[in-house]
Amino acid sequence: MSRQLYDLTAADGTRFSPYCWRVKLALAHKNLNYETIPWHFTEKAAIATSGQEKVPVLRDGANIVSDSQIIADYLERTYPNEESLFGDPPARALIMFVKDWAETMLHPAISHIIVADVHRRLAPQDQPYFRQTREAMFKRSLEEIEADRPAALERFKATVKPLQRLFSHQSFIAGVSPNWADHIVFGALRWGTLISTTPLLPENDPILDWMGRVLSTYGMQAG
Amino acid sequence: MSRQLYDLTAADGTRFSPYCWRVKLALAHKNLNYETIPWHFTEKAAIATSGQEKVPVLRDGANIVSDSQIIADYLERTYPNEESLFGDPPARALIMFVKDWAETMLHPAISHIIVADVHRRLAPQDQPYFRQTREAMFKRSLEEIEADRPAALERFKATVKPLQRLFSHQSFIAGVSPNWADHIVFGALRWGTLISTTPLLPENDPILDWMGRVLSTYGMQAG
Repeated sequence: MSRQLYDLTAADGTRFSPYCWRVKLALAHKNLNYETIPWHFTEKAAIATSGQEKVPVLRDGANIVSDSQIIADYLERTYPNEESLFGDPPARALIMFVKDWAETMLHPAISHIIVADVHRRLAPQDQPYFRQTREAMFKRSLEEIEADRPAALERFKATVKPLQRLFSHQSFIAGVSPNWADHIVFGALRWGTLISTTPLLPENDPILDWMGRVLSTYGMQAG
Repeated sequence: MSRQLYDLTAADGTRFSPYCWRVKLALAHKNLNYETIPWHFTEKAAIATSGQEKVPVLRDGANIVSDSQIIADYLERTYPNEESLFGDPPARALIMFVKDWAETMLHPAISHIIVADVHRRLAPQDQPYFRQTREAMFKRSLEEIEADRPAALERFKATVKPLQRLFSHQSFIAGVSPNWADHIVFGALRWGTLISTTPLLPENDPILDWMGRVLSTYGMQAG
């Protein structure tokens, strides 16, 4: 296949990267077929042609594009006849608020809960790299972060309140169908729910219902 | 004038209601002239014809409309030839995320800081009503809430991070010009900055710059 996505993988094959999930949903939104190439944190050489060291990296024919937002912009520009990822202004600008909210509030809330779980799920060769970079980022050991899990769960519960309220009156963040705003927030919550050994949300939570609606919009599996 | 807005007032005439500010910006957005009628919390009788007890209440010719969101919908429907408050879908749906974020995160963060300050600024006849309703809402005395101000300020600082990041790369929440999303968030921050006896934001904060841009878009005064 001419379209390939380098997709971060755990030791057991679980694909958990929030940024890769964004791109998988965006590709589905644009009706584009692709195959994923499982990628480990330490396989920097495999994506060196992208000019940087992180996934998602999309290979689309002769084009190599990295960074989830740049990939979304690329898809929107390259496949303009498919459903828009952003809608017209001001929708595109408003999605940037959702993105900045997700990245400054939701991602930190989730990562505090799951960072030690992620470490345990990685392939052995990825674990030292992950520990070193994350402990530098958090300025604490993984074990110290994990000891704070109850407080982190409280913070997560407070952080997702706007989503719970939103889904009590509309189906998707973008309204009647999902767009890039939904992809961004879904990516974060998929990362959290796939990895966390502590349930993040009660079974009947409106956020889980919305995640199911996102997957079924694109004919994707929950499992 | 045929268009009048009942606008909550402090003892010294300061108009601080976040919901009234939304409507004043929406009226300016629609190029509609209006006069405000200063209104006190205890003047329920003055707005009884609206069928409820809270401001904003807009009297537009023969129409009496209350609730800021219902007023915005009314203005959009009644004045369709003026600039849209919402934009087309999915923008309108995305604004609801901003609204739910503002009301579940930003409003509580601000109200914890300023509720005792608001009480001090009210006309004497409003103070007992305000104390009683707010202490029931918070399940604590105003004095107990005020004692927690340092923690509330920390929570506020964390809550506004998405806005600070957003305004580092775009001018308004809705992009190149403000819309109802900006009006909602501005209302909350105007309420906070007008009333708080502790500065909420440093002088050079990008949020204050954005507040200035919103006011100058509509030719309104900062003072």
